[in-house]
Amino acid sequence: MNAAQLFESIRQKKSFLCVGLDTDIQKIPKHLLDTTDPIFNFNKEIIDATIAYTVAYKPNLAFYESLGYSGMESLEKTVKYLRQKQEDIFIIADAKRGDIGNTAAMYARAFFDHQDYDAVTLAPYMGADSVLPFTTYLGKWAIILALTSNKSASDFQYFNDGKQALFEKVMETSKQWGTTDNLMYVVGATKADMLKDIRKHTPEHFLLVPGVGAQGGSLAEVAENGMNHQCGLLVNSSRGIIYADTTENFAKVAAQKASELQQEMEVELKKAGLL
Amino acid sequence: MNAAQLFESIRQKKSFLCVGLDTDIQKIPKHLLDTTDPIFNFNKEIIDATIAYTVAYKPNLAFYESLGYSGMESLEKTVKYLRQKQEDIFIIADAKRGDIGNTAAMYARAFFDHQDYDAVTLAPYMGADSVLPFTTYLGKWAIILALTSNKSASDFQYFNDGKQALFEKVMETSKQWGTTDNLMYVVGATKADMLKDIRKHTPEHFLLVPGVGAQGGSLAEVAENGMNHQCGLLVNSSRGIIYADTTENFAKVAAQKASELQQEMEVELKKAGLL
Repeated sequence: MNAAQLFESIRQKKSFLCVGLDTDIQKIPKHLLDTTDPIFNFNKEIIDATIAYTVAYKPNLAFYESLGYSGMESLEKTVKYLRQKQEDIFIIADAKRGDIGNTAAMYARAFFDHQDYDAVTLAPYMGADSVLPFTTYLGKWAIILALTSNKSASDFQYFNDGKQALFEKVMETSKQWGTTDNLMYVVGATKADMLKDIRKHTPEHFLLVPGVGAQGGSLAEVAENGMNHQCGLLVNSSRGIIYADTTENFAKVAAQKASELQQEMEVELKKAGLL
Repeated sequence: MNAAQLFESIRQKKSFLCVGLDTDIQKIPKHLLDTTDPIFNFNKEIIDATIAYTVAYKPNLAFYESLGYSGMESLEKTVKYLRQKQEDIFIIADAKRGDIGNTAAMYARAFFDHQDYDAVTLAPYMGADSVLPFTTYLGKWAIILALTSNKSASDFQYFNDGKQALFEKVMETSKQWGTTDNLMYVVGATKADMLKDIRKHTPEHFLLVPGVGAQGGSLAEVAENGMNHQCGLLVNSSRGIIYADTTENFAKVAAQKASELQQEMEVELKKAGLL
């Protein structure tokens, strides 16, 4: 999928919502624990309930890996189910990988050949070697951590050489490693005021914005500062949707929450003249 | 395992060798492909052949994940086999993870509770949040990427604020997040001349040194510049040992290669007065 196709998907659903599948066996409704694959069954119901309002899903791999290979099996089933449900849904492996050439190539093979993800999140610390094996896959995306939404993001991401901060250096340098059709950046929504600056240097790239919902951050502010002529935003919500209710009603409430965000997004897309 | 216990293990085996289990289904001897679990069987023979010369093993998770959950199953079996074979062998999950608080906690649970690793490699980009959930596990280690051995390490790791490079900032800042009993750093052996400088600022910590063997780097130089009063080094070799021979003889040749490195290490340990 290229940027134009992603934008088309956003226009069709009037939404730039990404639902984070941070599925935690300790947090899902208790009645699911008696089923043969509680993790997959939870995801399936969440997907069925939210896919009308959602252009992307982002399973966070840590949650599945913490359960060993049975967790990985639930995850593979989830990705296959998403593809069955809607072939061109955008699926992000939130893996935050970052390793050298031959290892990065193994990861690219894992995510793009063995499984069927559209994109993988990557940590930039090791440089070009760790990103290029992903951007060489036609139609697939590397999503590079730039400015994250966690408290200790400031430990290193603001480290400054007098001209720019590390996160700006990361964006500037890594732009050479791909195109606006295969490179995206993670920019935390808690820094919505910084999106305007980021857009000066990176006007064209899609940005994946975590931190709306449970982690705070205003959707209107993000849209106002970060939207470009192809929308250029995927805004993620995880806990605010998938754990909004923890009874047998969870999927219905997840649908409501996703629908509310979709409606807000529709307003912003219209405001920007994109619908 | 704390630093003193790791040093004791080094003294017993007269070796500070770590064998990297970068097990690639496309590179292992062909006769193993007919067995029920070629990856595990390869690892088992490598372990049997090299454990006399080795204090640590470092499976690179990308290689297993690229095979989906069957690869993860082979890996879990490998870790269990290592523990059976020698209970206090030091096992490193070369995962290069780096994620925020709740996700990092899931990863820590995955590596330390669900499986039985002693240490995990971590990328520092997201700061303290991504490391602290690991250092709170008693007897377990976080191994932070500082200066890596790949070509594009220089893309960001040398980014300089006028006082220090990013990799130095990472070491200086992250020292606060743990102790010399649960924090280690990755420092590439291609930069052996820089080890002397690093030792000025970080005299006590263990360093995990990749890049000896197939990736180049001189063991004598690493030892001379990097060794401290508890050895303070784990030197990794992967391809130089596990793929030294690709016939049915592979395990025997792996043993020879590991034995050669052990003998060189014994010389260095004696030179430093540690044996």
